[in-house]
Amino acid sequence: MKTIITAALILIMPLLITPARADDGYRLWLKYDQINDKAYLKECSRSFGSVMITGDSPVLRAAHDELISGIQGMTGRQVTEVHSLKGKGLIVAGTFRSSPWLATLLPDVEPGSTGEEGYIIRTVRSGGKKLTVIASEGDRGVLYGVFHLLRLMSMRSPVDDLSVTERPSTSLRLLNHWDNLDRSVERGYAGSSIWDWHLLPGYISPRYKDYARANASIGINGTVITNVNANALVLTPQYLVKVKALADVMRPYGIKVWLTARFSAPAEIGGLPTSDPLDPAVANWWKAKAAEIYALIPDFGGFLVKANSEGQPGPQNYGRTHADGANMLAGAVEPFGGAVIWRAFVYDNNVPVDRAKQAYNEFVPLDGSFRENVLIQVKNGPVDFQPREPFHPLFGAMPSTPLMMEFQITQEYLGCATHLVFLAPLFEECLRSDTYAAGKGPEVADVIDGSLHGNSLTGMSGVANIGSERNWTGHLFGQANWYAFGRLAWQPSLTSASIASEWIRMTITREPAIEDGISRMMLASRESAVNYMTPLGLHHIMAEGHHWGPGPWVDRGRPDWTSVYYHRADTAGIGFDRTKTGSDAVSQYFPPLNDIYNDPQLCPENLILWFHHLPWYHLMQSGRTLWDEMCLRYQAGVSEAEAYSAYWETLRGVIDDEQFGHVSQLLKIQASEARWWKDACLLYFQTFSHRPFPEGVETPEHDLDYYRSLRFYYVPGI
Amino acid sequence: MKTIITAALILIMPLLITPARADDGYRLWLKYDQINDKAYLKECSRSFGSVMITGDSPVLRAAHDELISGIQGMTGRQVTEVHSLKGKGLIVAGTFRSSPWLATLLPDVEPGSTGEEGYIIRTVRSGGKKLTVIASEGDRGVLYGVFHLLRLMSMRSPVDDLSVTERPSTSLRLLNHWDNLDRSVERGYAGSSIWDWHLLPGYISPRYKDYARANASIGINGTVITNVNANALVLTPQYLVKVKALADVMRPYGIKVWLTARFSAPAEIGGLPTSDPLDPAVANWWKAKAAEIYALIPDFGGFLVKANSEGQPGPQNYGRTHADGANMLAGAVEPFGGAVIWRAFVYDNNVPVDRAKQAYNEFVPLDGSFRENVLIQVKNGPVDFQPREPFHPLFGAMPSTPLMMEFQITQEYLGCATHLVFLAPLFEECLRSDTYAAGKGPEVADVIDGSLHGNSLTGMSGVANIGSERNWTGHLFGQANWYAFGRLAWQPSLTSASIASEWIRMTITREPAIEDGISRMMLASRESAVNYMTPLGLHHIMAEGHHWGPGPWVDRGRPDWTSVYYHRADTAGIGFDRTKTGSDAVSQYFPPLNDIYNDPQLCPENLILWFHHLPWYHLMQSGRTLWDEMCLRYQAGVSEAEAYSAYWETLRGVIDDEQFGHVSQLLKIQASEARWWKDACLLYFQTFSHRPFPEGVETPEHDLDYYRSLRFYYVPGI
Repeated sequence: MKTIITAALILIMPLLITPARADDGYRLWLKYDQINDKAYLKECSRSFGSVMITGDSPVLRAAHDELISGIQGMTGRQVTEVHSLKGKGLIVAGTFRSSPWLATLLPDVEPGSTGEEGYIIRTVRSGGKKLTVIASEGDRGVLYGVFHLLRLMSMRSPVDDLSVTERPSTSLRLLNHWDNLDRSVERGYAGSSIWDWHLLPGYISPRYKDYARANASIGINGTVITNVNANALVLTPQYLVKVKALADVMRPYGIKVWLTARFSAPAEIGGLPTSDPLDPAVANWWKAKAAEIYALIPDFGGFLVKANSEGQPGPQNYGRTHADGANMLAGAVEPFGGAVIWRAFVYDNNVPVDRAKQAYNEFVPLDGSFRENVLIQVKNGPVDFQPREPFHPLFGAMPSTPLMMEFQITQEYLGCATHLVFLAPLFEECLRSDTYAAGKGPEVADVIDGSLHGNSLTGMSGVANIGSERNWTGHLFGQANWYAFGRLAWQPSLTSASIASEWIRMTITREPAIEDGISRMMLASRESAVNYMTPLGLHHIMAEGHHWGPGPWVDRGRPDWTSVYYHRADTAGIGFDRTKTGSDAVSQYFPPLNDIYNDPQLCPENLILWFHHLPWYHLMQSGRTLWDEMCLRYQAGVSEAEAYSAYWETLRGVIDDEQFGHVSQLLKIQASEARWWKDACLLYFQTFSHRPFPEGVETPEHDLDYYRSLRFYYVPGI
Repeated sequence: MKTIITAALILIMPLLITPARADDGYRLWLKYDQINDKAYLKECSRSFGSVMITGDSPVLRAAHDELISGIQGMTGRQVTEVHSLKGKGLIVAGTFRSSPWLATLLPDVEPGSTGEEGYIIRTVRSGGKKLTVIASEGDRGVLYGVFHLLRLMSMRSPVDDLSVTERPSTSLRLLNHWDNLDRSVERGYAGSSIWDWHLLPGYISPRYKDYARANASIGINGTVITNVNANALVLTPQYLVKVKALADVMRPYGIKVWLTARFSAPAEIGGLPTSDPLDPAVANWWKAKAAEIYALIPDFGGFLVKANSEGQPGPQNYGRTHADGANMLAGAVEPFGGAVIWRAFVYDNNVPVDRAKQAYNEFVPLDGSFRENVLIQVKNGPVDFQPREPFHPLFGAMPSTPLMMEFQITQEYLGCATHLVFLAPLFEECLRSDTYAAGKGPEVADVIDGSLHGNSLTGMSGVANIGSERNWTGHLFGQANWYAFGRLAWQPSLTSASIASEWIRMTITREPAIEDGISRMMLASRESAVNYMTPLGLHHIMAEGHHWGPGPWVDRGRPDWTSVYYHRADTAGIGFDRTKTGSDAVSQYFPPLNDIYNDPQLCPENLILWFHHLPWYHLMQSGRTLWDEMCLRYQAGVSEAEAYSAYWETLRGVIDDEQFGHVSQLLKIQASEARWWKDACLLYFQTFSHRPFPEGVETPEHDLDYYRSLRFYYVPGI
């Protein structure tokens, strides 16, 4: 007996002396580390000892593998596969059509209630035994149900009496990769593109599958793998076999591959004299190209198009409309069940009076003129992914057209990959905005999920923050933004707090006090960034070339690419007058919102300089002048960023060492850059306000000339 | 008792069901996984139970941490730190000066015998106890000794009766990173640069320390972190603080940081009207710059310079010589103990009759005119890192100047990161070449290590193959080339076979039969690549722009950048006539080598087309014609590459799954690209030879037009 114990102890030794695991972030929220809580471990071990998957398909096999590896990882026990109702702690997972028996376990479930992607997870009793059932009408629903169960376990939620019914609110839940074929990533801050085009199709990186798993775990079902500033080369046979190889990896995880279509491709790579969408030869070229793609990738999603915007070619080059262009492409993919996503982010070569108005002006007249398989993808706000914008006025304004949301997960204007800015509150703020499209009530989310206007084709896109960095997103907390996007695309009614909690518990800690501290930091972080960058509705005042640091003084080049165009600071005051007597952008909103935004007394203060040019002495709700309020907001942002850093230092030795060290360094950078933003902006705006900084505002570290003289080279992501 | 056992078994469970570890390659050859062999585990556990480090310094602390984590990892037991001679299995490590007692343990060791970097590892008895001593005159020697001991354990070599004495053969053992400040890497095939300039100095990636550890483990003591095609920006204060941050990470591992110096920096960033090295203002600017650097980095190594070559600025722009330029810079760093490494890889803006002759012609006349702290860095061959070249004729030809070897670890001309080509045989072939510089005998290695001409400043550089890829080098076997370079820089007399054995045992397997199989493949792989790319002395026949695929037809642009300049194929025959009646490059070699190379009957056949233009019907030693021999060599290369792939498939399930899958895919790519090389080259050369392929040569898959029409985009590493 003693020998046995000794042998056992020798085997145990490595566990005891293994240093605190250094978590490099690769596993994201899918760690499946063994459960330490003994009671919970016992509960899971008892409930999930064996598995039975009914039916067979690549997606069900992926679900099977994930379920088994997840449970084995967390319980530390071998999971038995069974093919009949025996053993203890059985999980039965499958589609209703694969097993009539499954339906009998859920007698109250009506046909059609889950759809292909929704699922039911239920603890039931059958033959005197307790079972856990995961069921759906579709294979993907089973896969999503498996990930849901694993999420519950990862969060240490009770699993012994489950009753879950889920169904996604949108049909297309896509990542948009702004990845170029040379592996650079536009606005990417996490290394280079994860797509290794040179080595495809011969080399399939293990990363591709892990990417697919991560996305499937949060319900993402499509990925646009190329930049909207598109390269026609990806449509050539040389590249399409590479795209096919990626699609083959994604398919078992329910993820369709999409491509961006360069509108001038027929002329560029097709040898045609034109790319005019109404030219039959052009339409035929696209039809043949679609057929070529679908022959390789039968479940190809379709095309995402940025046309006639920022120099990209489009139908307007040939005197045609966006609808002409979109419909021609839609006709090409329609026979194969594909769709076209057409971006509303356009701007003219002629500088408009107010760029914020342009998408609305161009697209509202086209409402109703798009084919059924066209969606219009609209950025959350009318300018460009600023720290804060009002929701885009197109939401609610095109009742006959499916509008798809475009959020930006990558932090182009939010500190790139070095600032902790949890974006769920930004997404939530937009989705929860009342559009007044049918009187008070309909929120942006109701436009997106199709409920307001009865669209069946619905969707949400997020511009990915994923790159070749080991931890995928550069900043550990960038993972939370990817996670939040997926969860909100699935269910826009989720709260930021619940998403933060899920992510923290799966990624960092399940210790309630720490979870609470980190959650508070995350939930406040977006407002802090708004404060130290662009408080009170300021926007687009970053440096030239990169969008990382401050540059409120930028006044060269195309006016609507400058900062002065947007902040309009002068000795009288600051802000962009978008009222009825200004650019009248307010009138793009439904009443009474147009009147609310139009009135400086009613307009929310967090957007006031978006809509109003106000005097420096304008009295704010706080009783302070606009100038003092602005100064104190900037200061608050800095102080908050410093507080995050200080809070994080208290976690040393309490959380994983590598996670700690990584974030610790980044929070210090963030605090220092927050101060840079404050100092540069306040010193610059002071040249107009001619007012002193109010009490409580720390003296800038340098003078304005210093900040204006800073030059940076090779800033990532451009 | 039963309870204890049950508890123990629960703890053991995870070990039992853990799947085969997926080795992502990050840990390189420093895995320190637990020893499975019970007898060896017992030996190590008994011999290495406690540790005593005498002395204290950052380098000794690094040695301490490595020793403890390595032993604990491999034995699975806690290592005790002791401060006196007690406990069992004691390792005592330190410098002689830190502990007189250490010297008494090694009574026969003469002062000065190890130097600062050498070391002694000895099993001794003291006070009736068996100890292991690691001792050196310098801290770095202790660190290297620690890594040596860990290497022995990792290889499962006997450790119970050690008697090791090591001392490096060269003083500077450097990596050269051709890394740009935008994180692109010239001729880099493993992702982007590991130096994240944008985030430095605020963010110190854990990779930097692991990079330093890996290099220290093989004796590399310096790293040139910037591209020889240099950017003056790195010399500005904004970047120097970033360089300092890296130097601070490297220092505890005995690694000095070096920079490349852009010769025109005084004019570009210094505001001077000229960068003429004989202008006192220029010399003063460099002196001040050196002082600025050394104030931040007291152990800064110095500058590596590529001047007047491929468009880089240099002293010749001002009518000065390479010696004028090098000596001026050497004067700037000399007060701080720095050195200047000046590259001999130069070529003129005027196309020479034979580019292979140029470095010799330019540098031999300068012998003796360089300052004492200048080294001339010479590529292994006279053209440019081809699959096979003769050794560079400068070796041996500059007796009054220290010549430093420049090997290329990154596989610019050897399949980039997808071909398994073990480079130790290439390095060894060069180092072992008889220069005849003092009659028969003196090898290139004797020039490099200073023994031939009595230089004390000696060195070897390797152009790094390291990038941001998780496994550092893209191809798993690229790690072996990094490893081999370091080992040969330390000790040029090591054999390729012994290096391969070390690397395989630490990286892949200690199973003798598999080790043997992999070793055979590695040792033969370079000759296979020569065969399928450039057999019989052919060289520089790759495609334009990238150096990855075949392009023997390239004839546009600067003549000495074309392929036809080098292979000179015509209906009469093929090869570059470098005989006395040709370009006379043979005369740059010492007699009788010049005559050997000059005579087609004596010239080694593996270099014959380097030195001779021979008729297609020329009779080879095999009895075959040159044409037939060339065809069969190409075919042999392809067949060998296919055999490597087939061999590797037999390792499925036998070695780590991720290592297996990774290399399996790459070997298939290699075999397919080998065929592409063969088919393209043979079809092209056949247009001159007008001869059929001999029996045994497989029919090309496509016609020549197909191969000539291939276009590739965004090939990495350019």
